Formats: sequence, structure tokens, C-alpha cells
Amino acid sequence: MPDRTHEPSLKSWLETANEEGCEFPIQNLPYGSFSTIGSGRRLGVAIGDQVLDLRAAVETGIIDLGQYSETLRSPTLNALMAAGRGAWAKLRFSLSDLLSSETPSLRDDQTLRAELLVPISETSMHMPFDVSEYTDFYASRHHAFNVGSMFRGPENALPPNWLHIPIGYNGRASSVVVSGTPVRRPKGQVKGPNEDVPRLAPSARFDIELELGAVVGVPSDHPLTVAEAFENIFGYVLLNDWSARDIQAWEYQPLGPFQSKATATSISPWVVTAHALEPFRVSTPDREVPLLPNLQDVGPMLYDIALQVSLVPANSLETVISRTNYREMYYSAAQQLAHHSSCGCPMRVGDLLGSGTISGPERENRGSLLELSWGGKDPVEVDGGTRSFIEDGDTLILRGHAAGDGFRIGFGECSGQVLPATDIRATDR
Amino acid sequence: MPDRTHEPSLKSWLETANEEGCEFPIQNLPYGSFSTIGSGRRLGVAIGDQVLDLRAAVETGIIDLGQYSETLRSPTLNALMAAGRGAWAKLRFSLSDLLSSETPSLRDDQTLRAELLVPISETSMHMPFDVSEYTDFYASRHHAFNVGSMFRGPENALPPNWLHIPIGYNGRASSVVVSGTPVRRPKGQVKGPNEDVPRLAPSARFDIELELGAVVGVPSDHPLTVAEAFENIFGYVLLNDWSARDIQAWEYQPLGPFQSKATATSISPWVVTAHALEPFRVSTPDREVPLLPNLQDVGPMLYDIALQVSLVPANSLETVISRTNYREMYYSAAQQLAHHSSCGCPMRVGDLLGSGTISGPERENRGSLLELSWGGKDPVEVDGGTRSFIEDGDTLILRGHAAGDGFRIGFGECSGQVLPATDIRATDR
Repeated sequence: MPDRTHEPSLKSWLETANEEGCEFPIQNLPYGSFSTIGSGRRLGVAIGDQVLDLRAAVETGIIDLGQYSETLRSPTLNALMAAGRGAWAKLRFSLSDLLSSETPSLRDDQTLRAELLVPISETSMHMPFDVSEYTDFYASRHHAFNVGSMFRGPENALPPNWLHIPIGYNGRASSVVVSGTPVRRPKGQVKGPNEDVPRLAPSARFDIELELGAVVGVPSDHPLTVAEAFENIFGYVLLNDWSARDIQAWEYQPLGPFQSKATATSISPWVVTAHALEPFRVSTPDREVPLLPNLQDVGPMLYDIALQVSLVPANSLETVISRTNYREMYYSAAQQLAHHSSCGCPMRVGDLLGSGTISGPERENRGSLLELSWGGKDPVEVDGGTRSFIEDGDTLILRGHAAGDGFRIGFGECSGQVLPATDIRATDR
Repeated sequence: MPDRTHEPSLKSWLETANEEGCEFPIQNLPYGSFSTIGSGRRLGVAIGDQVLDLRAAVETGIIDLGQYSETLRSPTLNALMAAGRGAWAKLRFSLSDLLSSETPSLRDDQTLRAELLVPISETSMHMPFDVSEYTDFYASRHHAFNVGSMFRGPENALPPNWLHIPIGYNGRASSVVVSGTPVRRPKGQVKGPNEDVPRLAPSARFDIELELGAVVGVPSDHPLTVAEAFENIFGYVLLNDWSARDIQAWEYQPLGPFQSKATATSISPWVVTAHALEPFRVSTPDREVPLLPNLQDVGPMLYDIALQVSLVPANSLETVISRTNYREMYYSAAQQLAHHSSCGCPMRVGDLLGSGTISGPERENRGSLLELSWGGKDPVEVDGGTRSFIEDGDTLILRGHAAGDGFRIGFGECSGQVLPATDIRATDR
């Protein structure tokens, strides 16, 4: 079936979906899990300033996924994803048709509209899917160069394997939270360069990482080609991989980051589908060295998505501290997923792959405070002061959108406020 | 209620449970998930040469867990674990009573015995629990010294943080398989020291790691004390963390092992409970440097468990290549779990924590082929040849038991045969 949602001229009968700058026009149709006062968690699709209740839509019969209709009664996306690509396409087509200005069924039925549509302002958002496992990558050339330069000097910035492998490590799925969840500053083991022994202390270098998260929708149990991997990704979210740099510096050798990344990972509540991003595909940069066959590019698999980070100190105004674009990545999510499966690792519905920090070539394009403040040497200006790293009470907000001709595919916000550390209790037996 | 199963003199009416060397006496009572021809997966407890069908036991009413009875109808242990420590203790007490030589209810009812008992030889074993997330540690002093010596020389063998933190990294839960599952040799990216560029090749240094896996039975969302962590562990399994050393060497810096550990992790089918291991608690070795308060020992939390590894070449005889003991570890599972939670990482029912390779002080105590053959320089004798690393067709078998006074708490076997690598397909779009 043709995907009409890629037509820029397509309009919805819901006028707020057609307004300039709207993040959720009929071309987007992102999925989330929401609740309202007095009514439990259910799936919805964002349109304009409203959420279309998918559970109610399937119960009234106005959306019919046949044998997969039951998947829309689940509070999370996992069952729908597991239903496979055919079901994804059918639902998107049905929603696009239902919400089109040309389709009268819902447009002209005020009673049904009142039953199915909920203002976004009246919803609470929840985790859109159950995260099976979470993997974080290190795949922006600019980010790797910046971080490597700080620690090893510019001539040794890139590790020897970096141009050959999308370097990644397994993170902790249990730590993934939805946007809006407060984040408690961790208290962990740190040791300064001039200290003889480590100590327990609240992280003094707590940071963000601006990332895009790819959501695996098709399971696999064999090494995937890059082309297969691309097709297995259901959609994308904004992702903030909160990082305690001082804890990380002490713990990460020889086996990688562990507790420094375990406090929280925030994601945006709306999963923007790969379908919606299709018109925005762009190629990875030219390869500096050839990739091995199982990782080679087979078409444009990055997306042109403008991204930004804001910092809001407690009781202060918002400052945009970074602006970059997902197209700056050296490796695509498809390449990352192909590598992830290369040694036979089974991949599951609901696996979440963080892109790695997305930095661009200029200072203002850097996706972490570590890079923005160059390890604290060059603090960033914010309302009422400066920041080298996050202070208690600060709220960090990620935003992103792909800009089409007359419409915008937005991700909504991925935000979190940092709360002061609490005491680690000593052993009390 | 008193735990009668710690009485060495306790006997079962099932005579095979009382035989010398039996791994599953009434003092053990490990749980697993089994099936038989024509009947689906269900929970069971091993006793002598039989499995007591827990689903059937609860359906006949001879076992009654009250509000938690339904947990015994699940094919995996997760629901029982989630029911909490009280339910664990009640089930263990009920089973110990039911199987005791002094209790007539099942002993004297041949019809019920035929309904509830299945010979182990007629069962297929499955994953005993759904692994939520899998973490692997690096916590044997001997192992860390051996591996460090090979790569950095004995004077720099231990990383600076090693004596202060139970170093760990997140692994891949989807790769955990039950004993008996064949393991396909991975084909991944490798680069030899004299090669200019990497290549895709079957791992030529495929290895085992002899470990004990701790199964988290109580969830948590805050930093745990060591004492709390100890109480949250439901039980233990044998664990083989298959490792592709050549893939690991090329990929692991700077963010740790990834695909080299993602092919498979095998566990024994029987979960031996912390209750059963209670009489075998021993202390960690003396600390070489003091630990920070949140990691300090608060009592004996290792166990005296004799362990061994066998290698069986295809069509050849078995050779025991390693003998060691879990008491050799520098950090206990409780210390590892406490550290795992220290920065606020939520822990979940079914989380699996690998101890790290368990090596002892002598050559024959080494828990990996990397150490046994000292990186291939000193191959190990096996039936019909020698081994530096695993060859196709080899079967590796882990075994372990705690030896009591007149009884033995056995783990059964954790085995896997290595199959030849298959081709990674190049991108085919």
C-alpha cells in the first residue's frame, strides 16, 4: 500500500496538526503510552495537540488490525512491534487515512472524537515500550575526537579500532526512564589524580550525553546484514545517557563504564517511526578507511534530524547550550545493529541502541558538557551563571525534529531534573 | 520455622537421594524447569535421580503455598522468586518435610509418587528463569593477576582500581542458554599484532570462563548494603562465560568487552538455593587494602564449592583440565551486588551476576584456557592431543559441589559443545 503520509501536502482535519511548527503533523504519527486522571495506561498516537487513544480506537472498531488488534490493547508497544512490519505499515496507513482531512468517519463524528481524542496537556506519559536490553555506542567522530583529545592528546584521540567498528558496550535496561522522571545525582567511588585512595562521594562531574535511541522491532538470532538491520528498527527516540564522569574515570579500565552510566538513561515519550523519518534519510560521511563487508554502507541510513540541548537552572530561564544534527554520526544505527549481531548475539523486540553522543564540528555542536566546557576549563554560560557540569536543581532538555517541506517531524522533549545526592548507607548488620 | 534441611542426618524415603556422592540429596532441593515427551515445560525440584513435578504437586494439593501457589504453575522461577523470601522458605520447608523419610504422605502413596516423580533421565531441561539482565565480574585475584601478567607484566598486573571495586561490566541476557545448548564459534572482527588492518574470521582463541552465577530474587531501587545484597540472592548456578579472546583483544578498548562475550553464556539447569548453601559459607581472603564502607565484609559470604572443568574432544575421552574452588574469590556475590546498586541502578528479579573467572593459586586451578595454556604458550594435555584454545567439536563441562558431612550439594553439569563457525553474510542489498 502507498504511504500517503510522505506527501507534504497531506493535511489533517485536526487543525492544530496543520499549524506551522507543529511537532506532530499527520506525517509524523509517533506512538506513546499515556494515562489520564482516572484512566489507566494505554497506547496513543500524537496528532497536533491531541493524543488519539489507540485502545479506544480499536475497541470502537474504527481501527482494525485484524489478528493484531489485540496488540493495541497493551499499555506498551512491544506487542505491536512483535506483530511485524506488515502490522506496522497497516496501522500507519489506517491512522493516516483516519486523520486525513478527506476522511469523514472521525472528522464528522463529534461524539467519537470526544471519546478518542485527549489533549496532550491532560496526559501523563509513561515508558512507551519495555526495554529488553540497552546498548550504548560511541559513534560520533567529533565526540570521539574531542574526548580522546582531552585524555590522550589530539594525535592519539581515536582508539585504533574506532574507524573499523562501531564501538559499543552493554548498558542497563533497568535504568531507562521516561522524560520527566527526576534523576538523583549518584554517589559513587571516585579517586582524584592527586589522591592516594578512592572515596565515596556525590559525582562532581555529572553530565548529559545527547543521543538518538533506535528501537529494535524485529528479533533476530543470526548475524544481520546492514540492510536487514535497517529494516528491523521500528523507530527512534531522543535519549540522554546521564554520565558521572568522575566515577567513570576511576572505574572504566579495563572493562568499560558500569556504575557511571547506571543511574538513569532518559528517553522521550514518543517513538517516531522509521516510516515517518523515511523522507529524511542521508548518508554517513565518507569512510576514512574501508569498512569490512558486514558493516559497509548500502544506502543512506542516517537521518537529517536537528537536535538541541537546553539547560534550565532552578528558578531560572532556559539556555540552549548545544545545537547539532544526527547526520553528523560516523555510523548509522543499522551499522550498529549489524555489528551488535555479528557474533551471533540474539536481538529482541524492545532492544534499545543509543547512538552515542552526537557532536558536530564546532564548539556549539558538542553533545555533552564534558566537551562543551572542555573538561571544565571553559565553562558554558547559562542564565544566572556558568556550568562546567550539572548542578543540583538543573533541568536538562533535549529536543529534535526533522524539517520537511511545510511540515516538521518532532520528537517532543526528553527532560530530567537533577536532584541532590542522598547518603549511601554503610553496611548496617 | 527451623530449616531441618541443614541437618546432615536427614534422609529421604527416596533411596537414590541418600546414596553416597548423590548431587541431589534432601539437603539440596535445587529448582529447575523441565519437560518430558508429550508434556510441556514446568518447574521441578531435583531429588536423588528424580524430579518432583512442582506444578503437579501444587495441583494435587500436596504442596500449598497459599496465595503464592500460582507461582508454581509458571514454567520459570521468576514468579516464585518475586513472591519473596517468606515464600522461598515455606516452599523449602514443605519440600523437605514431604521428602523426609519420616513423612508418609507421599512415601506411602505409590499412585501419587507415579504422578509427581519423573526420572531425571527422562527429562529435557530448559532455562530455569528468565534472565532480566546479565552482568559479568572480574573478581578472582588469581585470574586478574594471571591475565594482567600476560598482557602488562606481573608488576602491573592488577589495574589500580581492582583492590577497591569489584570490577564488572554489563553482558547480554539474550545470550544466556541452558546447559546442553550447542555453541556456534563466532566469526568476528580481529586484528593480529602484525596485521595492518582487521579482518572477519572465525575466532581462533575461543575460550571458556569457569564462573558461578548469582541469581537476584529480590528487586531493589536504591544502593544496597552488603548485608541486604546477600539476602536478595535467591541462588546460584554454574556459569560458562564463553569468550572469544582474539575478538576481545581488538574490541575491548576503550569501552570493554562486547561481541567477544555475546555468542553465548551457558548456565547449569538447576538453581541451588542460598538456603542449601548456608552451611558452606566462608569468608573472603584478608583484604590487601581496606574497602570503602559500602563494600566491607559483614560476615562470611563466599561458599566452599569445589569446581572443575572437563574437556571432551569429539569422539574422545573426557579430561579434567581445571580444579578450583569458589572460596578463592576476592569479592563475594553480595559485594558485587552491593556495588552494582551503588549509583542507584535498579536491580530486578532474575538478574544474573557472573562471579568472574574462578582461578586458584596453582596452574591446575586456573579457570580459563587462556590462563591454563598461558596464552597458548603451554598447551594443555587432553585425550588424543593438546589444547591452547577450544577446537570445533570439543565439549566443555563444568561441575561443582559443596561437600557436607555425609552429603553433597551438587550443581549438576553445565556443558556445551562448540560447533564450527558459519559464514557471516555480506550486505546483500
